[in-house]
Amino acid sequence: MDIDQFPKSVEIFEVGPRDGLQPEPVFVPTEKKIELVDRLTDAGCPRIEVTSFVHPKWVPQMADAKEVIAGIRQKPGVVYSALIPNLRGLELAIAAGLSEVVTIMSTSESHNMKNLNMTRQQSLEQVREINRVARENGVRVRSYIATVFGCPIEGAMDPQIALDTALRLEEYGSYEISLGDTTGMANPISAYRIPKMIREKLTKARLAVHYHKYHGMEFANNLASLEAGITIFDGAAGGLGGCPYAPGAKGNCQTEILVEMFHRMGIQTGIDEEKIRETGAFAQTLSTLLHQKCQ
Amino acid sequence: MDIDQFPKSVEIFEVGPRDGLQPEPVFVPTEKKIELVDRLTDAGCPRIEVTSFVHPKWVPQMADAKEVIAGIRQKPGVVYSALIPNLRGLELAIAAGLSEVVTIMSTSESHNMKNLNMTRQQSLEQVREINRVARENGVRVRSYIATVFGCPIEGAMDPQIALDTALRLEEYGSYEISLGDTTGMANPISAYRIPKMIREKLTKARLAVHYHKYHGMEFANNLASLEAGITIFDGAAGGLGGCPYAPGAKGNCQTEILVEMFHRMGIQTGIDEEKIRETGAFAQTLSTLLHQKCQ
Repeated sequence: MDIDQFPKSVEIFEVGPRDGLQPEPVFVPTEKKIELVDRLTDAGCPRIEVTSFVHPKWVPQMADAKEVIAGIRQKPGVVYSALIPNLRGLELAIAAGLSEVVTIMSTSESHNMKNLNMTRQQSLEQVREINRVARENGVRVRSYIATVFGCPIEGAMDPQIALDTALRLEEYGSYEISLGDTTGMANPISAYRIPKMIREKLTKARLAVHYHKYHGMEFANNLASLEAGITIFDGAAGGLGGCPYAPGAKGNCQTEILVEMFHRMGIQTGIDEEKIRETGAFAQTLSTLLHQKCQ
Repeated sequence: MDIDQFPKSVEIFEVGPRDGLQPEPVFVPTEKKIELVDRLTDAGCPRIEVTSFVHPKWVPQMADAKEVIAGIRQKPGVVYSALIPNLRGLELAIAAGLSEVVTIMSTSESHNMKNLNMTRQQSLEQVREINRVARENGVRVRSYIATVFGCPIEGAMDPQIALDTALRLEEYGSYEISLGDTTGMANPISAYRIPKMIREKLTKARLAVHYHKYHGMEFANNLASLEAGITIFDGAAGGLGGCPYAPGAKGNCQTEILVEMFHRMGIQTGIDEEKIRETGAFAQTLSTLLHQKCQ
């Protein structure tokens, strides 16, 4: 461990309101979603994934995307973003006044098909188009790559696929790429090697990591990625997330503990520890998934 | 992260039956304790802290120490040990046929006094005497140093105290020293620096780490200590532990997840993943503390 090489500060990308709440089977009232985002803003979160412009037929939980964005207090300097599945979603996000959108695709062909109902090639072309239109509108694109550290359907994944995908996304203009451990299959060695290898090949895009919960192992994974030179970490307040249909899918890495870990290490996040802890506790009150099984 | 320097295998020291169950406010039936130890044996745990020979007035939960040791199946090659507070405890442990005993003292004077009702100097003298008598009886002594990474009463602790204590314990004959993060106050930097510094100074004694739960951060701490060259890790099946009187005190690091983390990293433990998972689930059924609050 090369402590002297650790950064003085890292950036937390908060995904609770979107990735965290999206799988919730019970609709979370719009005003509660707005309150969650406002609390995250007040806690000092620099970047918040607020909602998703996916068709309500597919994700009814996010049917109030427009109302949520209209309802939140947008603090200058804080970046509010939304997941978009296609150009139609991008149009809605632009109309809502967002300056950043988020795309997603998998390293795994079968997961991509199951999750997005299209091939990886189709997803890549989609992200290219999204980047083109986003650029014309002054909107930045953040792109997730899912199942980088393993796929619940295909098992172990070749890191070369994640690398190739990242290079394509960078080429298309995504300014930031987030490597997703979609179902908590990473370990500290893969969480070190894969981000390091990809980071060394990227020339423009920033690289983030996105670990899901695995009984606490996600903190070891985040530490390993920090050691690999990563400085952008995704988390969800309260550890929100999971999947009602896939027993293996877990919540996201708990933002308030990630923040505390970095702070204990003397690495700043700009987030208020007490406020994010309160926000995490509030976030947990919105979830039914988290209460299905105590870990 | 120097992956090439990682060991091919590590040793897990299982503390569930003792450190894990000791704080339980409801008496766990003797046969359940025996079943827990037998399951741990069957899962392949190489070393198990079975019980404690503390006066039942202080720890009524461990009043059946003799019966538990008499009742368990002792598999050849597996080391079964008990915590002992003094020479009387050692005599009982020897009479019960144990080949290893465990002592404990704190780096913090006030925690030592509160926990053991004696000064650190008195504790050191006690461990010296225990080592002397144990040696005469062919019994090995493992010594915990508690509050190494912070004390719930005194706050931050000078690592020099832990080092001085470890050197004294080594001098007195303790063959292994375990650095305890008693209330989950470590972070990956202290979990790297302190064990590394102490390990470099010890000439005979082996060094272990003992992290308590802190919402998952304990796995980052164990990883950091692995990177510091530590190869002996304490854990409790099911994450048993905590303290009914101290809301800040958490359970122990969950053995089954620690085992899985190492296995995912290609580091062997000799423990069967599925059996230790089942044993962890069984252990949790014995606990009331774990169910008081979902994390």
